[in-house]
Amino acid sequence: MVNVHEQFMADALRLAEKGLYTTDPNPRVGCVLVKQGQVIGRGWHQRAGEAHAEINALYEAGNEAAGADCYVTLEPCSHFGRTPPCVDSLIRAGVARVFVAMQDPNPIVAGSGIALLQQAGIEVHTGILADQAEKLNPGFCQRMRMGKPFVRSKIAMSLDGRTAMASGESKWITGPLARLDVQKLRARSSAILTGIGTILADDPLLNVRGTENFDWYPQNQAVRQPLRIVVDTDLRMPANAQILKTGKVLLATAVDTPSHHDIETIVLPSLEHSIDLSALMTVLAQREINEVMVEAGAVLNGALLRSRLIDELVIYTAPKIMGNEARGAFELPNMTTMAQNIGLKITDMRSIGDDWRITAIPEYNEEF
Amino acid sequence: MVNVHEQFMADALRLAEKGLYTTDPNPRVGCVLVKQGQVIGRGWHQRAGEAHAEINALYEAGNEAAGADCYVTLEPCSHFGRTPPCVDSLIRAGVARVFVAMQDPNPIVAGSGIALLQQAGIEVHTGILADQAEKLNPGFCQRMRMGKPFVRSKIAMSLDGRTAMASGESKWITGPLARLDVQKLRARSSAILTGIGTILADDPLLNVRGTENFDWYPQNQAVRQPLRIVVDTDLRMPANAQILKTGKVLLATAVDTPSHHDIETIVLPSLEHSIDLSALMTVLAQREINEVMVEAGAVLNGALLRSRLIDELVIYTAPKIMGNEARGAFELPNMTTMAQNIGLKITDMRSIGDDWRITAIPEYNEEF
Repeated sequence: MVNVHEQFMADALRLAEKGLYTTDPNPRVGCVLVKQGQVIGRGWHQRAGEAHAEINALYEAGNEAAGADCYVTLEPCSHFGRTPPCVDSLIRAGVARVFVAMQDPNPIVAGSGIALLQQAGIEVHTGILADQAEKLNPGFCQRMRMGKPFVRSKIAMSLDGRTAMASGESKWITGPLARLDVQKLRARSSAILTGIGTILADDPLLNVRGTENFDWYPQNQAVRQPLRIVVDTDLRMPANAQILKTGKVLLATAVDTPSHHDIETIVLPSLEHSIDLSALMTVLAQREINEVMVEAGAVLNGALLRSRLIDELVIYTAPKIMGNEARGAFELPNMTTMAQNIGLKITDMRSIGDDWRITAIPEYNEEF
Repeated sequence: MVNVHEQFMADALRLAEKGLYTTDPNPRVGCVLVKQGQVIGRGWHQRAGEAHAEINALYEAGNEAAGADCYVTLEPCSHFGRTPPCVDSLIRAGVARVFVAMQDPNPIVAGSGIALLQQAGIEVHTGILADQAEKLNPGFCQRMRMGKPFVRSKIAMSLDGRTAMASGESKWITGPLARLDVQKLRARSSAILTGIGTILADDPLLNVRGTENFDWYPQNQAVRQPLRIVVDTDLRMPANAQILKTGKVLLATAVDTPSHHDIETIVLPSLEHSIDLSALMTVLAQREINEVMVEAGAVLNGALLRSRLIDELVIYTAPKIMGNEARGAFELPNMTTMAQNIGLKITDMRSIGDDWRITAIPEYNEEF
C-alpha cells in the first residue's frame, strides 16, 4: 500500500528528476506543497545559482502556502550558499508540516535544517521514499559522505566480452539506440573520464551531442557539458587531439611540468605505472564533481576496479561474437584465481534496440 | 485468435514434449483424437521401437476413433520401420479428418503419408502450428533435410566473456541452478561433443546425472545416456580418463590407428590442425544422431564456428568479472575485422538463479 505521504513524495521525486541534466554540482531536488489534499505548489531545482525547489514551490503557492504541508526530496538547506536558506523561507511562509525524503548527506550539516524547522514549531517527518531520493543523487551523496564522486563506467561489448578488435577497430559494436542512450549517461555526469590510450586510438570528443533532438533533454536550457578528464600518466596528449578543440579538458598526470598545450593539468603521485586514481577522485570531489562517467579501455577500467573505485557498471552488450583475438574489457593482471573474481549485483537489465543494457554494482571482496 | 484446430494441436504438442528426453533417435511426436469437441484419445511417442503417438492415441480412443478428427504433430509414417505404418492404422480406425502440424522433414518421403490418407478418402490439413512442431525436433529435422545433426553449444561465462582462469580453473562460474539446467540440455541430446583439451584439463564425465531427483525427467523410464564424442585429432586420450569408465565414448581422430584403449574410433581427414568437423557431423547423422550438445573450450568452439556448424548457442552468463587474463570462449584467429564478426539472433533470455541464460542463433555471413 502506498500511503498519501508516499504519493506526494513520489510527485516531488518526479519533479526533482526534471533537473537530472542541469543542477550539477547541486543535487536534484523536487518539492510539492499540499493543502487539503490538493497540490498547490510545485518546484524543482533547475540550475546551480538559481532558486531551490522549495522556493519555486512556495512561489507557485503564494499566500496559500500558510498551513500547507511541504514534501521535499532532500532536507531543506539551513545555510547561505549561492541562495538564502530555504528553511527560513518555509518558516516565513508558515507551512504546517514538512515531509523530507532524506537528510542532507553531508554528515556535518545533516539534520540542522530539520532542527531549525522543529525549533520554529513545524512538525517534520523524514525517511519517506528515502531510497529513491538517494538514487537520484548518487554522486552528490557520495561526495558529501565520503569525499569521492560516484563513478559509473560505461562499457560497450560483444556477447563474448570484447570491446574492440585487436587492431583497435570498435565502430560500432552497439547499435544507434544504445549509442543514443550513452548520451543520457554523459549528459547527467559532472565529468567524463578517459585514458590517454583511448585518446590516441579513437581521438574522441566525449561531449554531449544532439540534445536539440532529444525529448529527454530540457529544451529551454543551455547544454551543460561535463568536464572531460584524461588520465595521461606520462603526458602523451597530442596537441591536435579533437578533445582539445572544444570545451574544458583536465589532464591528470604524474609528470610534474608546469603546463602542457595550455590544458589545465593536475599532477598526482604515480602508483604501479599509473597515477593514484583514488587521489584523483579526492581532487575531483573537492572540485564539486558528483558523477564521473568512465569511457575508457581495459587498462583504465582495470586500474579503477583494482582501486575499488567503480561504483556502477553500465554494460551495453551487442548480440555478436568478436573472438578471442579481440580486446577484453578489464586488464586485471593480478587476478589469477576465481576467489579473486569480482561479483556483480545486477540492478537492471533491459533491451535497447538490438542490444542489452546491464547495470551492475561491483561487490569487491578479495584482493587482487 | 487461436482457433480450435490450433488449440487441439497445442495439446498434441504438449504431449509430444513428454518424449523430449526419451524418443531419440526418433522424433518427439504427440497426437490427440477429437470427437464432437471432446478429446477421446491422447498419445505420444515414448521410446524408439515402441508405439508411435498415433497408435497410443488410437488405443485410448478404442472404437470411438471412427469418425474422429486426428491432430498429430508430424506427418504419420507410411513405411514399415521398427513398427508398422501409422497411416494404415488411422485408415483402419476410420478417422474422419487428419490435422498435421508439419510434413515429414525427409524430402524423399515428405507428403507420402498425407497422400495415402487422402487416397483413402480422409480429409487432411497441414501446417497447423508448424513452427512449434519444427522446434520440438530441430535435430531430427536437420538430419533428415541436410544430413547433419543440430549442434547446440553450451557456454558458461562471466559477464566479461571468460570461461576459465588462465590456470584452467573454472569450477564454478555459474550457480547450482544453471548447472542443473545444463543437465536438461544433456538429457535431450543424442550426443555430447567435447575436445581432448577439456578432457585433459577437467577430466569430466559428461553424462546425465541425478535424474531421479528431477521432476522434469520421466521417472518410469530408464535414463538414456547420450553418446560422448571426443575430438582428439592427435590421439592424446589418457587411458585413465574418467569419461572412459562409464558409458559409450566415440573418439574422432586424424590418426589412422586401428584401435586406441579399445574405444570406438572414427578416423577423419584433418583440416587446419583439426579433423574435418563437417565430415564428423555427416558421420554422426548417418549414425542417427539428432542433437549434438557441445561442451568444449575455445579451440573446438572456435573451429565449429569457423565451419559454420553451431546452430544454437546457449550461454549461461554469471554476474562476475574474471578479467582479461582469463580465457575467452571462441578462438577465432582469422577474425581481424568487425565485418567478420558473427551476428547473433537472440531467441530467448531469462534468469536462472543468479545467472542469465541467453539462447542465440549465429548468423554467419563474412568469411573469417
